[in-house]
Amino acid sequence: MSQHTENLTAFLAALRFEDLPDAVVARAEDLFLDWLGSLLAGAGQPPVPLFAGYARRMGPAKGPCENLVDGTTTSPYFAALVNGAASHVVEQDDLHNSSVLHPATVVFPAALALAQDRGRDGRDLITAAVAGYEAGIRIGEFLGRSHYRVFHTTGTVGTLAAAVAAGKLLDFDQERFTHLLGTAGTQAAGLWEFLRDAADSKQLHTAKAAADGVLAASLTADGLTGARDILEGDQGLAAGLSDQAEPAFLDDRLGQRWALAETSFKFHASCRHTHPAADALLDLMAREHLVADQIHGVTARVHQGALDVLGRVDTPRTVHQAKFSMGTVLALIALHGRAGLGEFHGIPLDDPAVAAFRDRVRMTLDAEVDQAYPARWLGRITVETVDGRTLHGAIDEPKGDPGNTLSRPELEDKFRRLAAFGGNTNAARADQLIARVWSLGAGGPVRFQS
Amino acid sequence: MSQHTENLTAFLAALRFEDLPDAVVARAEDLFLDWLGSLLAGAGQPPVPLFAGYARRMGPAKGPCENLVDGTTTSPYFAALVNGAASHVVEQDDLHNSSVLHPATVVFPAALALAQDRGRDGRDLITAAVAGYEAGIRIGEFLGRSHYRVFHTTGTVGTLAAAVAAGKLLDFDQERFTHLLGTAGTQAAGLWEFLRDAADSKQLHTAKAAADGVLAASLTADGLTGARDILEGDQGLAAGLSDQAEPAFLDDRLGQRWALAETSFKFHASCRHTHPAADALLDLMAREHLVADQIHGVTARVHQGALDVLGRVDTPRTVHQAKFSMGTVLALIALHGRAGLGEFHGIPLDDPAVAAFRDRVRMTLDAEVDQAYPARWLGRITVETVDGRTLHGAIDEPKGDPGNTLSRPELEDKFRRLAAFGGNTNAARADQLIARVWSLGAGGPVRFQS
Repeated sequence: MSQHTENLTAFLAALRFEDLPDAVVARAEDLFLDWLGSLLAGAGQPPVPLFAGYARRMGPAKGPCENLVDGTTTSPYFAALVNGAASHVVEQDDLHNSSVLHPATVVFPAALALAQDRGRDGRDLITAAVAGYEAGIRIGEFLGRSHYRVFHTTGTVGTLAAAVAAGKLLDFDQERFTHLLGTAGTQAAGLWEFLRDAADSKQLHTAKAAADGVLAASLTADGLTGARDILEGDQGLAAGLSDQAEPAFLDDRLGQRWALAETSFKFHASCRHTHPAADALLDLMAREHLVADQIHGVTARVHQGALDVLGRVDTPRTVHQAKFSMGTVLALIALHGRAGLGEFHGIPLDDPAVAAFRDRVRMTLDAEVDQAYPARWLGRITVETVDGRTLHGAIDEPKGDPGNTLSRPELEDKFRRLAAFGGNTNAARADQLIARVWSLGAGGPVRFQS
Repeated sequence: MSQHTENLTAFLAALRFEDLPDAVVARAEDLFLDWLGSLLAGAGQPPVPLFAGYARRMGPAKGPCENLVDGTTTSPYFAALVNGAASHVVEQDDLHNSSVLHPATVVFPAALALAQDRGRDGRDLITAAVAGYEAGIRIGEFLGRSHYRVFHTTGTVGTLAAAVAAGKLLDFDQERFTHLLGTAGTQAAGLWEFLRDAADSKQLHTAKAAADGVLAASLTADGLTGARDILEGDQGLAAGLSDQAEPAFLDDRLGQRWALAETSFKFHASCRHTHPAADALLDLMAREHLVADQIHGVTARVHQGALDVLGRVDTPRTVHQAKFSMGTVLALIALHGRAGLGEFHGIPLDDPAVAAFRDRVRMTLDAEVDQAYPARWLGRITVETVDGRTLHGAIDEPKGDPGNTLSRPELEDKFRRLAAFGGNTNAARADQLIARVWSLGAGGPVRFQS
């Protein structure tokens, strides 16, 4: 086994709640609230109900874990599956920049299922989530940009991140974590091919990553063994799914650098690759007092990863696909001042004003932006005005980035909007849920249906 | 979508039992019996009981499908998972040469689970299995040798093969098969890295492929959509997991070439990559009237794929790993005349005679053998005798290959030995099971526990 992997598994086994800085604990609560809101908002969105139906058909009639989509209970595997399917679909869940991983939607479903199954408290949940974030983010960075070009990192690496969180709740020692990475890593899957067809695989990926993480941890606890060098071995993950893996990321400043605290919140309800340009456009329009009608055309100058993902979408066919359309996002920003759930779900896909603006947006590769990515997600746009001016907009940290993060009042506001959008959570219940999340770090309960 | 994929999905949707040549139906029965025997033999072998325990913990208390490992019933997902875990572990299940896919252990668990769930008969089961074999084998050939170097094709492609079999039992039309391939393909996973550590992932791969095939088919039946071009798209399976995909394999002579009938039975209870050399050694020893003590050294001249897989194993640490040790297999052949379950499980891993012979075996790449592979698995060995002679052994079709296949009496004998090895099936029961399998093509029942 490589020293990098060995250092990582040693860290995961040794990690204790008492080791976590207060700011990391608080940020974990923030991220959990953000995740719970994303889940409540997504519970009724297609294709999430299909997963709830599947769990009823294949799983037990009830169990120790909460299925937060339909209010039933089930076994850990199906709770992770359904909650994982629901928490990514409205595209409001968190993103870690340099790994290009959405950690919450895979880590929290697995951690919550095991915490509920084992009767653990909020501190155990947070410790497990931190383990999942720290491992998953570093593995995502390790696999690098060539991986993300074809593979949906949240599906592939998400399986390992979820497994680590689950394994932490099962009190794994270093040897168990080694086997766990092998067993989770050999299940890692998820291809971007679905996006051009507006197919449902993004939800399948998060559902399966969370659930297979639970499966991996459960079988490992029972004694299933896995490859010891799944990350770096010459028939392992990097060998098969990356051209440029960098092992030094795997144990980068463990215990000093808290990758969880670097994770960004989403302000706009769209693919994170659209946010830098969206914020740059917002900023430029405010500065120049522009309205949409004055804009003749917009060029978003982006990194290659944005072209790889967003470049597949021409005229969006579904609301979900619209969130991956740079033209649609910038149209909503220009016309309505925001690109939130209200805009995506309230304005028809074929709205003439949005369509007309969308056709005036193009993307182009920008060397500076591409070089900074994925560590930094720079927003650079050029606007041609109707009256013939060329204007440049630039932001260096999109809203929600660690240096430009959301405050607790902003997070609570976002949560209430997400819960209201979902339709099954009234205002008083939303307040109760917020209070419960803010008690996790004090060892509060980890149940949210009662 | 590519024309190759479109032709494949059209074939799968249109396939009817009435289209199958009698010889294909009979061979499907042969393969099913061989699979059932492999399962019964493997039911108690590590790590199979872990999967049965997992199914009890995560799944329903009972269901419409037979868990053939422990005699209980469960839902289709868990039946496929457990039966898939059990039917590959003793390394006696079938192999298709040119795709390097073990079809039975992934196709039959999924097909049987859905057939039982939907109350179908033996003809439906066979039609579904043929669909799974025809699709899986062609997709394996499509991904080619570069895929197999890092990926365990039975895990990756097995997910698609199992899904197709399950989808056929759900009467999918072409559109559903298109979505199904997308949803199954984006879950395809399985890395060879486990082998050097003698870890349990090979059973995890077959279990997950079969179960995820059921998951994919069930969700597709409910309306989940998948990528339309998962095989050939530039962010699809071949783009991510192969360097040399050949699309023409995908629809190669559909309806004329029956790939199921090309599938080989395993005579020896070891990795198929050892069989050509084993048969060549058997042949040479018989021809030259040699005994083991007269052999100073053996060189097995093999294809690169054999080196990639078997080259990871030095001194085997488990019985399962011993089946991937060319030296051990040839030692058993030389010393005991066969390398069956009795030899692998009856002779200690550290048996001095086996160890001494193993140390006198080496493998080397042979250009002729490598060029013929994977279409043909040639056996070529060179033996140095104690008295100084150099002898050459060669066979062109290992025992069990389509041109050197097992007869029904040989298959029944193999089944009885496998069932006896498993320990839970007496001779009378074995005869009942054989009779039931031979009735499948006549529309017999698909239940085997009662």
